[in-house]
Amino acid sequence: MIKTLIGNKDFIESLRGKKATFMLAMSNTKTADIEGITQAGIPGLIHLTPTLDSEFICSGEVRSLEDIAKTPKGVPTPALITRAVHLLSSFGRIELLNLGMEVAPKVKYFKQHSFDIKPSHRIDTNAQIAAETLFQRGVEFGEAYICKDEYIILGESVPSGTTTAKATALALGYQAQNYFSSSFKEVPHSIREETITKSLENITQNDTIYDKLGKVSDNMLIFNAGFIYGLNNRVEIVLAGGTQMACVLLVLNSILKERQTTFDTSNIALCTTRWIAKDKHSNIKALLEMLDFPIQAYYASFDFSLTTHPALKLYDEGEAKEGVGAGAALIYASLHGITKEAITRQIESFLIS
Amino acid sequence: MIKTLIGNKDFIESLRGKKATFMLAMSNTKTADIEGITQAGIPGLIHLTPTLDSEFICSGEVRSLEDIAKTPKGVPTPALITRAVHLLSSFGRIELLNLGMEVAPKVKYFKQHSFDIKPSHRIDTNAQIAAETLFQRGVEFGEAYICKDEYIILGESVPSGTTTAKATALALGYQAQNYFSSSFKEVPHSIREETITKSLENITQNDTIYDKLGKVSDNMLIFNAGFIYGLNNRVEIVLAGGTQMACVLLVLNSILKERQTTFDTSNIALCTTRWIAKDKHSNIKALLEMLDFPIQAYYASFDFSLTTHPALKLYDEGEAKEGVGAGAALIYASLHGITKEAITRQIESFLIS
Repeated sequence: MIKTLIGNKDFIESLRGKKATFMLAMSNTKTADIEGITQAGIPGLIHLTPTLDSEFICSGEVRSLEDIAKTPKGVPTPALITRAVHLLSSFGRIELLNLGMEVAPKVKYFKQHSFDIKPSHRIDTNAQIAAETLFQRGVEFGEAYICKDEYIILGESVPSGTTTAKATALALGYQAQNYFSSSFKEVPHSIREETITKSLENITQNDTIYDKLGKVSDNMLIFNAGFIYGLNNRVEIVLAGGTQMACVLLVLNSILKERQTTFDTSNIALCTTRWIAKDKHSNIKALLEMLDFPIQAYYASFDFSLTTHPALKLYDEGEAKEGVGAGAALIYASLHGITKEAITRQIESFLIS
Repeated sequence: MIKTLIGNKDFIESLRGKKATFMLAMSNTKTADIEGITQAGIPGLIHLTPTLDSEFICSGEVRSLEDIAKTPKGVPTPALITRAVHLLSSFGRIELLNLGMEVAPKVKYFKQHSFDIKPSHRIDTNAQIAAETLFQRGVEFGEAYICKDEYIILGESVPSGTTTAKATALALGYQAQNYFSSSFKEVPHSIREETITKSLENITQNDTIYDKLGKVSDNMLIFNAGFIYGLNNRVEIVLAGGTQMACVLLVLNSILKERQTTFDTSNIALCTTRWIAKDKHSNIKALLEMLDFPIQAYYASFDFSLTTHPALKLYDEGEAKEGVGAGAALIYASLHGITKEAITRQIESFLIS
């Protein structure tokens, strides 16, 4: 069930049976308002996706809308996968990181870390993020954070986050033109590429790393790079995601280089889905190999071969791939002895009603 | 598996996967010696029920008698349910609260909190409880108590406890005549009502709240109201029971009103069984709605539809409903991914031998 992408199995095996805190980092970028740029959500209500995702993984209910976020083709959010795992072999707790949301989730009793961060702007016209301050907030959060379980799983829900991630990597000088994923099977290159190209035109030669991030990135990428830096390797952390989480590491890598400092990354791994690992339109391994520090990465071999539900089959066809920590959740399930059959049935139970 | 009776799902969902300390509050009232007033135990040996219940949930054995407590019709104690859950997805620990028992349980290594409290007397002739002192002991226990798990499940085992609970609520002035449950399907109204009526005749106009409690209540109700007050909302507590636990809250409510003090109850919930939630002879929801503070309440949808065992079927027929924290234990199982099927088979295994 667990496949190694980079490194060896020991890190992930050492977490077998251990409880994790599942933390969901959420932010909105107005980049998602560009028509047709993402299919991670309901057209016109894309900004609600992280709100609904977090409500669903916590409570099993979507409260800020009647129905759970679906893509236009009817691909259900990967939050279904994460919730199913939580029901079958629960996380130690779920905590929410509000990194600039249009609408805060309507859940009580779950720890919500808020920092009074505003949603970021469209990258084609300048995201206007105070990147250095935001990174520093992440650092301070990481320094102060006390994990009440044995390790952290850090997922994300950021609509159009792969677009901002790609722009970020390119702005930072990584040769990552063909490596970024998308929530689409057939990526609408024109809109997305046009947006990225425009965003990069705003970068000038004198821009510092933080100037660049402030123009083309998103809150999740910057804050989480700081969070990881602030944790300083003192607790194991699984970055639960695909190319966006790889980009968090690229941001961290660039900042470490700029600061000319070394950093122990032995307690960091990235965990994703097979849909990302085997995606022909992106290359997460290539992204991770650009890092100057060693990293370990894994993916869950889980697929929807045991279901006949057409909406779920779309995952196997490449229409949705990752998000809301789905890949790491599937690995967590595997580390707790939960079968593919059980996960499939649990996910189906959310859809058949 | 988990249904909401009052409030929303968030409190109980936030406990998903977390370990709880299961605490069993036990006391004897000589009210149970009144012939025919309860079927929670073996005739002539009713006073042993909490002793046997606690021995069984801790060790899987009954030590102070050859056989586990059964009602005259052969309904087995709900301790079977709680023990089954503990075997399938264990509590963090079990602790025992001896609030005045005829016979202390024969278990070692399990924390037994003892306070040198004596069993209370028959309420028809005056229970003779030093109620204010007892409440204060509960407060001090709550103030000092350190929970070693993430939350507390507080169950009870008090034979004829619904009789003393009803008398208590009425003595405190709640219009609760038709709201209290009983271990019987066909409640022997004459004996029970006669006892309650007699007990209330001892109440005089000048009685303080503690005078009233001292005459008609039981140790469990008074101590636990103090315990909750002393905890002061600093740790989540699930009151595991039916109308008796609702009465604990009514006692607390009256004391808060008398003291003219406010109290944060956001970390308190009541969890019970479907047999209580759907009982036509009682109304736990109405009891909880009499409280001046907000409370959240849930019940386990578990029933014995998956068994053919006649003794267990009696639960679905209304002959036993709750006790020894059974409802909260079933919810705990659900929060740890245990199926109805698994619970049913485990409970059956105690009976078929």
